[in-house]
Amino acid sequence: MTDGLSRVPTAEFERVLAGVPDRYDRARAFATLARINTLYMVMRAGSGHLGSSFSAMDVVAALLLEELDEPFAENGDVYFSSKGHDAPGLYAALIGLGALDEDLVHRLRRIGGLPGHPDVHTPHMPFNTGSLGMGISKAKGLILADRLRGVTRRVFVLTGDGELQEGQNYEALAGAVHRGMGELTVVVDHNKIQSDTWVRDVNDLGDLPARFAGFGWAVLRCDGHDPQAIDAVLRKRFDAHAGQPAVIIADTIKGGGCATFAATSMGPDEWRYLFHSGAPSTEDYRTAHRELVDAATAILRANGLGDLVLAGEAPAAPRPAGGERLVPAYGEALVARAARHQEILALDADLVLDTGLIPFSQTYPERFVEFGIAEQDMVSAAGGLASQGFLPFVHSFSCFLLARANEQIYNNATEDRKIVYVGTLAGLLPAAPGHSHQAVRDVGSVAAVPGLAVLTPCNIAEVGHAVDFCVSTSDSVYLRLASTAVPAAVAALPTGPLVAGRGRVVREGGSTIAIGAGPVVLAELLSAAEELKADGIELTVVNLPWLNRVDPDWLAELTDGAESLFVVEDHYLRGGQADTVARTLLELGGTPPRFRGIGVDHVPQCGTEAEALAAHGLSARQLADAIRGERPAVRLDITVSPR
Amino acid sequence: MTDGLSRVPTAEFERVLAGVPDRYDRARAFATLARINTLYMVMRAGSGHLGSSFSAMDVVAALLLEELDEPFAENGDVYFSSKGHDAPGLYAALIGLGALDEDLVHRLRRIGGLPGHPDVHTPHMPFNTGSLGMGISKAKGLILADRLRGVTRRVFVLTGDGELQEGQNYEALAGAVHRGMGELTVVVDHNKIQSDTWVRDVNDLGDLPARFAGFGWAVLRCDGHDPQAIDAVLRKRFDAHAGQPAVIIADTIKGGGCATFAATSMGPDEWRYLFHSGAPSTEDYRTAHRELVDAATAILRANGLGDLVLAGEAPAAPRPAGGERLVPAYGEALVARAARHQEILALDADLVLDTGLIPFSQTYPERFVEFGIAEQDMVSAAGGLASQGFLPFVHSFSCFLLARANEQIYNNATEDRKIVYVGTLAGLLPAAPGHSHQAVRDVGSVAAVPGLAVLTPCNIAEVGHAVDFCVSTSDSVYLRLASTAVPAAVAALPTGPLVAGRGRVVREGGSTIAIGAGPVVLAELLSAAEELKADGIELTVVNLPWLNRVDPDWLAELTDGAESLFVVEDHYLRGGQADTVARTLLELGGTPPRFRGIGVDHVPQCGTEAEALAAHGLSARQLADAIRGERPAVRLDITVSPR
Repeated sequence: MTDGLSRVPTAEFERVLAGVPDRYDRARAFATLARINTLYMVMRAGSGHLGSSFSAMDVVAALLLEELDEPFAENGDVYFSSKGHDAPGLYAALIGLGALDEDLVHRLRRIGGLPGHPDVHTPHMPFNTGSLGMGISKAKGLILADRLRGVTRRVFVLTGDGELQEGQNYEALAGAVHRGMGELTVVVDHNKIQSDTWVRDVNDLGDLPARFAGFGWAVLRCDGHDPQAIDAVLRKRFDAHAGQPAVIIADTIKGGGCATFAATSMGPDEWRYLFHSGAPSTEDYRTAHRELVDAATAILRANGLGDLVLAGEAPAAPRPAGGERLVPAYGEALVARAARHQEILALDADLVLDTGLIPFSQTYPERFVEFGIAEQDMVSAAGGLASQGFLPFVHSFSCFLLARANEQIYNNATEDRKIVYVGTLAGLLPAAPGHSHQAVRDVGSVAAVPGLAVLTPCNIAEVGHAVDFCVSTSDSVYLRLASTAVPAAVAALPTGPLVAGRGRVVREGGSTIAIGAGPVVLAELLSAAEELKADGIELTVVNLPWLNRVDPDWLAELTDGAESLFVVEDHYLRGGQADTVARTLLELGGTPPRFRGIGVDHVPQCGTEAEALAAHGLSARQLADAIRGERPAVRLDITVSPR
Repeated sequence: MTDGLSRVPTAEFERVLAGVPDRYDRARAFATLARINTLYMVMRAGSGHLGSSFSAMDVVAALLLEELDEPFAENGDVYFSSKGHDAPGLYAALIGLGALDEDLVHRLRRIGGLPGHPDVHTPHMPFNTGSLGMGISKAKGLILADRLRGVTRRVFVLTGDGELQEGQNYEALAGAVHRGMGELTVVVDHNKIQSDTWVRDVNDLGDLPARFAGFGWAVLRCDGHDPQAIDAVLRKRFDAHAGQPAVIIADTIKGGGCATFAATSMGPDEWRYLFHSGAPSTEDYRTAHRELVDAATAILRANGLGDLVLAGEAPAAPRPAGGERLVPAYGEALVARAARHQEILALDADLVLDTGLIPFSQTYPERFVEFGIAEQDMVSAAGGLASQGFLPFVHSFSCFLLARANEQIYNNATEDRKIVYVGTLAGLLPAAPGHSHQAVRDVGSVAAVPGLAVLTPCNIAEVGHAVDFCVSTSDSVYLRLASTAVPAAVAALPTGPLVAGRGRVVREGGSTIAIGAGPVVLAELLSAAEELKADGIELTVVNLPWLNRVDPDWLAELTDGAESLFVVEDHYLRGGQADTVARTLLELGGTPPRFRGIGVDHVPQCGTEAEALAAHGLSARQLADAIRGERPAVRLDITVSPR
C-alpha cells in the first residue's frame, strides 16, 4: 500500500529508553519517536494539531522522562496542557511510556478513542482543556486542594503563547502570587505562531518576561528544544525560586524537530503557517516521516541499537468530503456587501482562515481588525465601534464567541448597538476536535439577549440572504455557520429573502412535519424522509433558519391540520429552536399537534461525522425511527455521558 | 424637617466657577460642591456608591473643568468611567456644569431618572458600564472608529483598582500597544479598597506600575486628590508619551475629600469599609454634610464669595423594607452544613457581604478562598478543587457569575465536576443598581449546561432545603438567590425537602393555575390571587423552585383538568421557567390548558422595586389583569426599550 502509514510500537520505545544511557540523548530519541507517532495519529485521524505537538514535544519529554515524580501515581506530580492543541503529541508520549493503551494510537479523534483536545475521560488527563486560558486557574484549584489535603507535589502547566492573549490568564497569575504558589510552574511553549500566523502580527506579546514579572512571577527562559537547557532551567527554577510561582518561557519552533513542518522552513512570502490543525499532504507526510526516522536511526545507531523497527501499514484517513462550504461563501458575501456598505467592518479573534475572512482582510485591510485570542476585548471594542455608526461583524468559533464574551454581548445589547456576531464551527459537526469546539449550547446562551436574532443558513444561497438580512435589519444577529461540507441535497434547496421567524417547506409531505435548520440537520431530515417514504409516511420537511424566533402566524398556518411536529436540532435539548417553537405553539392555544423536540442530550462525543450523528441519535435512520415513534420520548435533562 | 436634605443648586455652581480665579482652587471648590450633591443624591435614592464617587471626584473635576476639549460636543474629547460605581459623583459634576438637567439631582436610581450605573440613555454617557473591565476595550473601539472617520480626539477612561483583577483589562491593554493608541489615557482611581475591603487583602495587585509597564504602557502616577498634581501628570503624559497608550495611577482615598467617609478614618479593628454602596445613616449624613459645606465655605470666603447657598429641604429615601432575607440565611445554612461536610468550600469574588459569606469566612477561614473580581479564575479553580473531591460553593452576583464565567461553567460540567454556583442579587429586584446588576437572563444562559439544575428558593425555610439538596445531589446546581426582603406572605409559606422538578401548591384554588418561584414572583402572585378572588376567580398558586427542570408526571397531575396555566418569572421571556414548563407540557401530548408565560420583555428599568415591577408588568394588579385576560398576549421577542 503506497499510501500506508507506519508507526513506532511501544515495545520499540521501551527498547530505546532502556538502551540509550545519556539522559539528554534519551530524551531526544524519545521525542523523535513520539513525533513519528504523532504524525501517524494525525494522518490516521485526517486532522489534528501537528505544529503545537511538535513544538512542545521536547518539553513534554523532559518533564515526563526526567522531571516529574511519579507522574502516573495518584498523588504524584501533575503535568497538563492548558492550550490542549498539543494533545496528539502528549498522547503519543504517553503511549510510548505505556501509560496509555497502545491500541489508542490508531484512534485519535474517533469515538471511544483519543479526543481532539484533552478530556478527563482519558487516563492521565487531569482536566478538559482546549478552551484556552483556563489551565493556570485549574492548576491553582488543584494546588489549593492539595494544601487542604496535606499533599505535597508540583504542578506543571503548559500554555501556548497565543493563548496568553486570553484575559483569564492574568486573573490567574495575580492570585497565584497572592497565595505564594511555589508548587506551580507554567511553561510557555513560545513557538511564536498562533492559529493563523505569527503572534507578533496578530497581537504582539511585547516584552513577555516583563508581563509575567509585572504580576510578581519568577521568570526563566530556555531553548525549548534542548533537553540540557530544559533541565538546567528547571533546576534553577526550583533552586532559586522555590516559594514563588514561576514561568519558564521555552523558546520553540512551531513544528519544531522536523524541517518539513518547522516554521523556520516557511518562505519569505508565506504569511500563514500550514500545519496548525489539518493533516499534511501524503507527500509532506512521506518527507517528514523519512526525516524523523533518519533522525531516530542516527541516535539508535550511535548507541549501538541498530535500526528503528516500525509497525505498519495503516491507511490514512480519507480526505474530507467535497461539496460547497458556507464559511468561504460567507466571506465572499461579506466582501460584496462591504463594497456597498462602508460602515461594515470585520473583527477577528485569530481565526481569519476558519471564519472566511482572508478575502475581506485583503480587500479592506483598513476595515479589518485582528484582536488575537481576546474575545471579550473584541466584543466590547465592537460596541465602541458601533457607537460611532459602524456595523461590526465579529468573528470566532461559536463555542468561544457566545460563551467567552457572553456578558459583553449582553452589555452591547443593552446599549442598543447593532452588531453581527458570526460564529463558525457551529453545531455538533465536525466532531473531531471534541466538545470544547462543538457549539451545542450557543443558541441557548444568548437566546434571551434583547434585540438579537439567531440565524443559521443551510446553503450558499441562503448565506447570501442571511448576510443581506444582517445588513438591512435593525436588530443584532448571531449568524451561526456550520463548517462542514454541505450535502448536495441541501446545497440544491431553494431559498429566498429571509423574513424573521418564517421558514420554508423544502419537502412537501403530509401531516407529519419536521422542522430543522442548517446543512447537517436538513440533510439528515431529507434522508430520513426517504426512509419514511418506504413506510408510507410522507414527511413534510421545513427549513426554519431562525433559532430564537418564530412568527406565530406562520407557525399556525404551518401546523394547521398537522398530526405531529418534530423539531430537530444540532444543539442541546434546551434553549434552542425546539424551545422556541414549542413555546410559541403552546401559546397559540387550541389543540396542538403531537410535538417532540430532538436534540443533543449529552456532552458531544468526539469522532467522525457519522460516528457523532449516530452517538447522538441524529442520523437519518435514527430520526426516521423517532418519527415513526419507535424511540421513547426524551426527558429534557442533559447529562455528561450517554445514558 | 429635621431629616431634610439640602443640596447645591446649579446656579450656585455657576457662581463659584465664575468667581474663583485660581484654577486649582476652582477645581477644589467644584469637587466639594459636587460631593455635597452626590451625598444628597445617594440619601435621596437610599443607596448608591459614595466611596468611589468621592475618591474619583478630584480627577473628574480636573478632567471636566480643565483637561477635556469640548467634552460635550459631538467629536470632543471623551471621558467615561469603566467601573461605573462613581456614577453619582459624575452625575453631580455634570449637573453642576449644566450638562444634565438640574431636576435629575432628585432622581438617582428612579425610573426615568439617573440609573445606578452609567447607561447610554443618559446624556454624555458614551457607554453602559458597571459590568467591570469592559471600559478599556470600549475605548479602543471608539478610537478605531475615530481613526476610520478621520476624527482626532482623546479618550480618557477611569477604572477602579479592584476592577483591575478582571482579565478583560489585560486583553485590552495588549491590543492598545499593538495599535499605538496614543489617544488613550487610562486613569486608575487607586483608592485601595474594593467592594468589601482592602485590595491588598482581597487579591493584591502587587507592583501595579510594573503590570502596566509589562504590557508596554507608559505609566505615570500622582496624588489623585491634588488638582495641581493631576494637572502636572496630565502634562507629562502628553508631552513625554504622546504616541503611546498611558495609564495614570491616581493615588486616592476611598470616600476621600470628606473625613466621615474617608477610608483613612477607619479604625484599626475595622476590616470592612462601610460606604461602598449603601446610603449612610442620618447622623453620618449630617456630619459629612456639615464638613463639606464648611470646606466649600472656606474656599468661597477666601475668594470673597460669601457663604454657600443651599437648596432644600427634601426627604431622604425611606429605609429598606423589613422582613427576612435569603442571603444571610443561606450563609448560616452553609456554615451549618459545612460542619458535617468537610468537603464543602466557599469561593468568593469580592462580595463576601452580599453573598452571605462573612460567617463562613470567619468560621472556616482555611476553607474559604477569596479570588477578588476574577470570576473566570474562580470558576476554573473550582473545577480544580472539585477534581480532588472537594465540593466548592462558588459565589458572586448572578449577573456576573453566570455570564462572565459562562464558558468556564460549561467546561467544568464537561468534566462532570460537582460544583454549586450561588448567585445573589438574582432577578429583576432590587432595580436600583440598574440593568448591569439585574440578572434576568442568568437562567437561560446556563439552562442547557449538562447536569446543572437551576434552583431558586422563596423563603428561609426553603433556603435550608435547597442547600441540603445542593449537598446531597450528584448534580451541580445554580442556586439563584433573591437579595430583596421576603414579603411576610411568602416567608410564611410551607416548604419541605425538595424533589427535582416538582413544586408545591401554596394557594389552593380552581382551574386557573399560576406557577412561579422565588419571593418576588410568589408575593405578587399571592396578592394577585386576592384581587382575582373579588372577581370570583380562585387562582391556584404553585411554587416551582426548579427553573430548568420539571417532572413530567408532576406537571401532568397538576394540569389535569386545568383551564389555564400561567408561568410568571422575574427573567426574560426566553430561556427560563416558562420555556421549561411549556416544552414539557407540550411534549406530554393531549389538549393542554391555555398557556401563557409572563416575564420581562425589555431591558430592566432602574428604579424602586414598585416602579420596576410596574414597568415590567409584574405587579400584582398587572398579573391579575393578565390572568383575567385583559392584556394582549406577548410576543417572545425581547427588546431594549419598552414598547
